[in-house]
Amino acid sequence: MPTKTETFLQNCWYCAGWGTDVGLGSRDLVVRKIAGRSILLYRTPQGALVAMEDRCPHRSAPLSLGRKEGDAVRCMYHGMLFGPDGRCRQVPGMDKIPPGADVPTLAAVEKDGWIWVWLGDPATADPALICEAVGPADPDWVLKTNAIRIETNYRQEIANLADLSHVSWVHGETFGGSDDWSLIRPRHKNLPRGIETRYTVRGVPAPNFAKHLFDPAARFDIDVHVTLTVPCKFIMSFRIKSAGDATSGESNGDLLLDTFTSQAVTPRDDGSIDYYFSWGTSKATWFPGIVELMHATNLDAFLEDKRILEGQRERQLQYPDAPQIDIVHDAGPGRMLWVLDKLLEQEASDHVAETVA
Amino acid sequence: MPTKTETFLQNCWYCAGWGTDVGLGSRDLVVRKIAGRSILLYRTPQGALVAMEDRCPHRSAPLSLGRKEGDAVRCMYHGMLFGPDGRCRQVPGMDKIPPGADVPTLAAVEKDGWIWVWLGDPATADPALICEAVGPADPDWVLKTNAIRIETNYRQEIANLADLSHVSWVHGETFGGSDDWSLIRPRHKNLPRGIETRYTVRGVPAPNFAKHLFDPAARFDIDVHVTLTVPCKFIMSFRIKSAGDATSGESNGDLLLDTFTSQAVTPRDDGSIDYYFSWGTSKATWFPGIVELMHATNLDAFLEDKRILEGQRERQLQYPDAPQIDIVHDAGPGRMLWVLDKLLEQEASDHVAETVA
Amino acid sequence: MPTKTETFLQNCWYCAGWGTDVGLGSRDLVVRKIAGRSILLYRTPQGALVAMEDRCPHRSAPLSLGRKEGDAVRCMYHGMLFGPDGRCRQVPGMDKIPPGADVPTLAAVEKDGWIWVWLGDPATADPALICEAVGPADPDWVLKTNAIRIETNYRQEIANLADLSHVSWVHGETFGGSDDWSLIRPRHKNLPRGIETRYTVRGVPAPNFAKHLFDPAARFDIDVHVTLTVPCKFIMSFRIKSAGDATSGESNGDLLLDTFTSQAVTPRDDGSIDYYFSWGTSKATWFPGIVELMHATNLDAFLEDKRILEGQRERQLQYPDAPQIDIVHDAGPGRMLWVLDKLLEQEASDHVAETVA
Repeated sequence: MPTKTETFLQNCWYCAGWGTDVGLGSRDLVVRKIAGRSILLYRTPQGALVAMEDRCPHRSAPLSLGRKEGDAVRCMYHGMLFGPDGRCRQVPGMDKIPPGADVPTLAAVEKDGWIWVWLGDPATADPALICEAVGPADPDWVLKTNAIRIETNYRQEIANLADLSHVSWVHGETFGGSDDWSLIRPRHKNLPRGIETRYTVRGVPAPNFAKHLFDPAARFDIDVHVTLTVPCKFIMSFRIKSAGDATSGESNGDLLLDTFTSQAVTPRDDGSIDYYFSWGTSKATWFPGIVELMHATNLDAFLEDKRILEGQRERQLQYPDAPQIDIVHDAGPGRMLWVLDKLLEQEASDHVAETVA
Repeated sequence: MPTKTETFLQNCWYCAGWGTDVGLGSRDLVVRKIAGRSILLYRTPQGALVAMEDRCPHRSAPLSLGRKEGDAVRCMYHGMLFGPDGRCRQVPGMDKIPPGADVPTLAAVEKDGWIWVWLGDPATADPALICEAVGPADPDWVLKTNAIRIETNYRQEIANLADLSHVSWVHGETFGGSDDWSLIRPRHKNLPRGIETRYTVRGVPAPNFAKHLFDPAARFDIDVHVTLTVPCKFIMSFRIKSAGDATSGESNGDLLLDTFTSQAVTPRDDGSIDYYFSWGTSKATWFPGIVELMHATNLDAFLEDKRILEGQRERQLQYPDAPQIDIVHDAGPGRMLWVLDKLLEQEASDHVAETVA
Repeated sequence: MPTKTETFLQNCWYCAGWGTDVGLGSRDLVVRKIAGRSILLYRTPQGALVAMEDRCPHRSAPLSLGRKEGDAVRCMYHGMLFGPDGRCRQVPGMDKIPPGADVPTLAAVEKDGWIWVWLGDPATADPALICEAVGPADPDWVLKTNAIRIETNYRQEIANLADLSHVSWVHGETFGGSDDWSLIRPRHKNLPRGIETRYTVRGVPAPNFAKHLFDPAARFDIDVHVTLTVPCKFIMSFRIKSAGDATSGESNGDLLLDTFTSQAVTPRDDGSIDYYFSWGTSKATWFPGIVELMHATNLDAFLEDKRILEGQRERQLQYPDAPQIDIVHDAGPGRMLWVLDKLLEQEASDHVAETVA
């Protein structure tokens, strides 16, 4: 259940949206709430990305209500001007800049169409820890992107993504179409910062959103390969094949549709997440209309998740002391949250060590 | 004044609405908040009523977002199936049901058109404690039903119902029409779980909602008989007669309109109530249009109560430490709240005794 | 930053709106939230102003939901009647008035078109402490009045008004038009209950809202004289002259537009203020349309303040422990808040002395 005041991992990359969300226009001062902080994003005239706390160090006015001036941003309460390094360049009416007049900046990187920010010390930001995704501009793929907000705690969204048995129930109208997803017991492999899961769903009917495209008797195999890493990045290859006769390992059917989805979940605070996602097919298996259908279905499906997750949160807040039992499908969520908690513990003990030293 | 966190009586019947609110349709999973808990109501194919906690024991998803399957309900997060006894029948993907995978059920009874649930141990539920009302299907009466929600603490609604002197002021546009209601000092008789009040208002003009139906000079007597029981059930015979010459006891005028109202107030939580009510006439005194007029007036009047009760609550929360003086009309509210508090104390001491034993 | 629970000055005058807000109509029971209290305002048939707590001493119903009867107000829950002195005159159904059945009243004064209430003991209310303003009925001035609500703490509004350097930035589209406001370092003179500030902005272009009325090359001097007193009354003479050649003291240009603004800010509670203001010209410098333009601009400008102040409050609540640095322009806010805090300390120690004595 959600803790009352969540401690968020600092030394990791949080998704701050799609690169196209932050334009070059004079009003393009984008603010994202990430792990309790409000982060201002903008681009310099050269297109370089700047990420800084959305708070003037003088009287806390949001810099996102400010004005872009070249590569700098001016607070429009008392006119203080800050460079992309967060350094104060000017205090109107003063000759000297007073000490402390700087804004904390964050390491920010664009990769695979996404913007990533590192909450911890920018000097320790490690681009190698950004997840491997497939961006909407990848020449081998046809992908469409989208975003929603869900009023839940991000741990519940992790649990949702680490256990796809819910596809049979939550997504009955969209991705689902049979009980098969809930009968599989996938093995999860621990990674240093997440889990990796591979399995094949065999001999299933077409999912509901695509049932009308196939003979009702047609059966399919689906090879699933998911990598889920902290804080909550869900990267999945989802390959639809004609039903083969292999009973273990990957399906040996014919590859019909090679799809890929990249999903990043950013906790805004204890009770709210932003969810950025793409889905589409390889160019080789694409056919007209299919990605538009997948795009529409994906949003419908995530609104199904939103409904159940927000209902769940309501009950968890209403019954804070009620026990929750575990079932077999909690292996994935349990592992993933264990990895997250281990990293959180490590950060806490590193912090104590630093404070003592 | 409302306590910050109310303790609600457990061993009593709370009204969960009208029986007609819970249908046989596939989507008829009704949820009611009662004394801080969310209760799912549905019917089996045979029409039997089921009441259970609206929370899956696995990850707290609301069962009311689930699916009816025969006499069972399936949680549509991970597919767990629960029978009408709350027992888990199936966990998809598991051969055995894990311990604890049950949902608490509540005793539920339909009587006089209302649904009643018992919050305490179902084994102790005593149908004899359900109040005596007149239901909308009673062949001797013509009644119409309705419901509203008021953002107040239920103790304030008890006080409202235990003292009808407010009719002169709050209901000036509807039930009222003179100061007479506020001049009467009724005697209240204590019952084991409430109070009973009988009196006659004599020689009053027609109430405002019916003034146009009578000669302005006409005067009436009204015999009132109220039974008010915990948590908050208000059953009233309200007989309108031509003004007689008796000065004590029941009016000896001619019975013009024999009306009956059944009202049940359910605390949702500390600051919100659901109010279910009916009003109408005996078949013998009915005439065309009268019950429709009473029905419309009743809702108008309860919206008058809502306005004053919600204003009162705002001030009580704003001035939590301000003293409140008592007046003569607080005899009824005082008695009724004394009965309620005595029962609450008894439950608290029984609970201590059980815990120690 | 706003304290969690603000202590408000009691022995001072708070503005409760414009006199025209409280009419003689039967429904003119006006309620204002002031420093956490809800105050009922109404007029007797002779037009005299009455101010009392908007709470019946019986069961806390708002008297503002009541009924005017002559010079009295009747609570429309149980009919208690209160005179303009707060004394209970009648409890329907009772022969005697129970002790404590009175409503606290407040000293209320109308001056310069405004209504003022004194939160402390009415016996100590000192009309000499009401600020000197110019009312909309003053025969020498042409003024229009208005009001807005801002969700901020009143200390932030004090800081806003005690430092007009923000005009260059916040009001770029309205009052501003150049950086000059942010380059001036005015001297502030302490008053017993506030500060007084005089300075001249020299050789500036027309403000943006009036740019189209003048030759673009025209330059102006502006003589500013502000008196700011607790809790937050901002009275300003703002005289626009043709640019003169004096380099200190008042401008020696020709007086073009002699304007005057009276502004009163009332804290409703910790996080909300009501703002009542007027602006206009002397009759001598008035010309057709100018006051209408100033009136519209004034509201636009205060909505600019609202946007920045509400953004600031959001960040201050989000980052309660973040340090705020000071700049040169904080001299005015610092002095004014120092005066306020000194008076608050004095009230606290007077209160201790009274309690001990």
